[in-house]
Amino acid sequence: MEVTIVGAGLVGCLLACFLARRGHQVTLYERRPDPRERRAGDAGRSINLALSERGLDALRRLRLDDRVRAAALPMAGRMMHAQDGGLSFQPYSAGGAHAINSIGRAALNRELLEAATALPGVRVRFGHRLTGLDERRGTLAFDPGGGEARARVVIGADGARSAVRARLQRLPGVSFSQDYLDYGYKELSIPALRGQFALDPGALHIWPRGRSMMIALPNPDRSFTCTLFWPHDTLAALDTPHKVRAYFAEHYPDAFELMPGLVAGYRDNPVGHLVTVRCSPWHVTTPAATVGLIGDAAHAIVPFYGQGANCGFEDCVELERCLDRTGDDFPRALELFERRRADTDVIARLALDNFVEMRDRVGSRAFLAGKRVEHALERVLPGYRSRYELVSFTTTPYAEVERRVARQRRWAAAAGLGAATAAVSGLVALVRARADG
Amino acid sequence: MEVTIVGAGLVGCLLACFLARRGHQVTLYERRPDPRERRAGDAGRSINLALSERGLDALRRLRLDDRVRAAALPMAGRMMHAQDGGLSFQPYSAGGAHAINSIGRAALNRELLEAATALPGVRVRFGHRLTGLDERRGTLAFDPGGGEARARVVIGADGARSAVRARLQRLPGVSFSQDYLDYGYKELSIPALRGQFALDPGALHIWPRGRSMMIALPNPDRSFTCTLFWPHDTLAALDTPHKVRAYFAEHYPDAFELMPGLVAGYRDNPVGHLVTVRCSPWHVTTPAATVGLIGDAAHAIVPFYGQGANCGFEDCVELERCLDRTGDDFPRALELFERRRADTDVIARLALDNFVEMRDRVGSRAFLAGKRVEHALERVLPGYRSRYELVSFTTTPYAEVERRVARQRRWAAAAGLGAATAAVSGLVALVRARADG
Repeated sequence: MEVTIVGAGLVGCLLACFLARRGHQVTLYERRPDPRERRAGDAGRSINLALSERGLDALRRLRLDDRVRAAALPMAGRMMHAQDGGLSFQPYSAGGAHAINSIGRAALNRELLEAATALPGVRVRFGHRLTGLDERRGTLAFDPGGGEARARVVIGADGARSAVRARLQRLPGVSFSQDYLDYGYKELSIPALRGQFALDPGALHIWPRGRSMMIALPNPDRSFTCTLFWPHDTLAALDTPHKVRAYFAEHYPDAFELMPGLVAGYRDNPVGHLVTVRCSPWHVTTPAATVGLIGDAAHAIVPFYGQGANCGFEDCVELERCLDRTGDDFPRALELFERRRADTDVIARLALDNFVEMRDRVGSRAFLAGKRVEHALERVLPGYRSRYELVSFTTTPYAEVERRVARQRRWAAAAGLGAATAAVSGLVALVRARADG
Repeated sequence: MEVTIVGAGLVGCLLACFLARRGHQVTLYERRPDPRERRAGDAGRSINLALSERGLDALRRLRLDDRVRAAALPMAGRMMHAQDGGLSFQPYSAGGAHAINSIGRAALNRELLEAATALPGVRVRFGHRLTGLDERRGTLAFDPGGGEARARVVIGADGARSAVRARLQRLPGVSFSQDYLDYGYKELSIPALRGQFALDPGALHIWPRGRSMMIALPNPDRSFTCTLFWPHDTLAALDTPHKVRAYFAEHYPDAFELMPGLVAGYRDNPVGHLVTVRCSPWHVTTPAATVGLIGDAAHAIVPFYGQGANCGFEDCVELERCLDRTGDDFPRALELFERRRADTDVIARLALDNFVEMRDRVGSRAFLAGKRVEHALERVLPGYRSRYELVSFTTTPYAEVERRVARQRRWAAAAGLGAATAAVSGLVALVRARADG
């Protein structure tokens, strides 16, 4: 089968690998030039990724996991930076057994592009921006050059601002939403200090500050990429070098000392937006063509659970399952794939919820105590797993994670009630014994 | 001030009247030809409107209410048609004091277009489809002809599938949703019977059938326009004349006998879609231009509360208030107008909720009994008003309607509790008296 994928980003390239392995002829159209020929890169435009089990599982199926891990740095927990400079480390799992993996988006994209183009049957057309898509005729149009292509199967892997989805949205019956947070993000850098990491490279660093926060992820060159998640009005208010320095000196004093390029980075790096996208259905089939969506194009989420790319990679695994079950009948496979929305709706919500946890609650005593209790339960109770662990270190479907967490809470509540009942019974017996005595 | 309005539908024409009265120069761009020159009309494409107080209030401010009322038929209540042909009438207000007004969209649009074009400073450009809008330069482009216009103030009154909104949606930070029901609508007709109305013309007729329903509104030519609101699968399933006749004979037997053109109408009339649109913000201001949205373009709702046009007309009144308060400073007025979202969000939800009520609960004994209690309370308690009455027969802001309904429920609950307390006290006293005796 000939399959057209729009977008040669992370998910587009990975999907091309899966489909080529199944014997399909894949053409990837990408609006940007070949990243392997670019020098500039995407400085200040993309959050570092935290690859975890769902992403690694997808890569493992293509034997790409070792290559990718070699370019990544494991982070076994969160390092919280209090305003007074105090540090506290919270392992992501009991005993720090599991880690998430920091990797730059550009590096990962290059690996996946290499992997895809090395496969027979995959070709990539760079500098092709989709300007038209007619599912009734099975045609695509591109700028520049105005070329037209025909396709019976089109999969949009073209991200949160998907051009393929823009076409679907115009069809009656396609429900859609884009919800922006009132927050922007901006990237900054903590360079290596005398050739060494300036902070512990084995952790994801968080500076929770109530309404806003900063995070930092390590890079192989021993720098850290920092990302501010601030309300737009705060971001806009720091409009002079003096204000930038004064604000960081007050709110992020330990990081401020490690950021010699702060003022220039703050001035030059753009403000990114944080959007959650929902769309239903994700596909349309006509006699001429089937058009579907995958990854961020189908369900962009905010980055606060570190699951955007992991979820997109898992989409590829799930679509492969749907192809297995339908004998590579793409219209039927894309119909089956719609069931995944139950899972992507859950992670979209968890990602939003986790922003509040990261910027606000994660620094509190109650939160830290809760995490300690959770890890103790993980050690003591066979089968008990925290939500974070189920999301990040298993491939349990997201919706099933939520059902399991709810079950575990009921058990814990029942156990607590049981203990309380026993205590009261004991007390009653004691009182009676004394009354009788 | 020169103001450009995109869309010469109901709200666009009414807004032009309001703005021209304030001394502004208004240009209306409309993609369709002049409806006054058309013969065909929009058969089968638009639900009859039920004009109620919010719409009439807006028309009254322009002294247009008498003209419009003359073309409308008052409906003082709902006439429910049971499957066995049994009828029951529910007045919309206590004693049938208030009525909503059935009017065809095309007739109303012509009246408003006449009113707008009769005013100095208003001009209309028909056959102009908006194809481009650049708020950074203050330019608009139109098809056919490819003309470009400049504008400092652009207001999109171009409906649920607004082209102006499509431009706003592409700006980062503009949250948006379109939610389709799994239901379609299709129009049919009950012609006059021997020159007379075939049903009571003083009511809105409803055939509630659980998952689906039909309604009928009277027309001045003594016909009724019927609208089916059915699940898409049901609409698609009736694909032969036999199936259409059999289905109507079974589910709508009394109407079936009054619909000689049923089979042709069912076959020829298109299926419409039911969408709820939300957008935030509704406007954007640059140094070159201010672009805003009004009516369905800003907040399309489903038709089940009869408030779509009424809400759009009330938008015009509210925008006029904002212009009053800002001295006709459009950027500031449109910023103030954003507060109206609190009201339009409420009516969007009520319209969705009312679908369930109309198709399902409206025929039940519990519902009828509830309505009787409500009307009794309206007669007995000073100030008590049902939600339907507040929405349809007052201009109380929608959000305030909800707060008032909540207050009334608390009072009623407290009164009920008071009565129960009194009863229990009496019982206790009685028991004590007997025990003492």
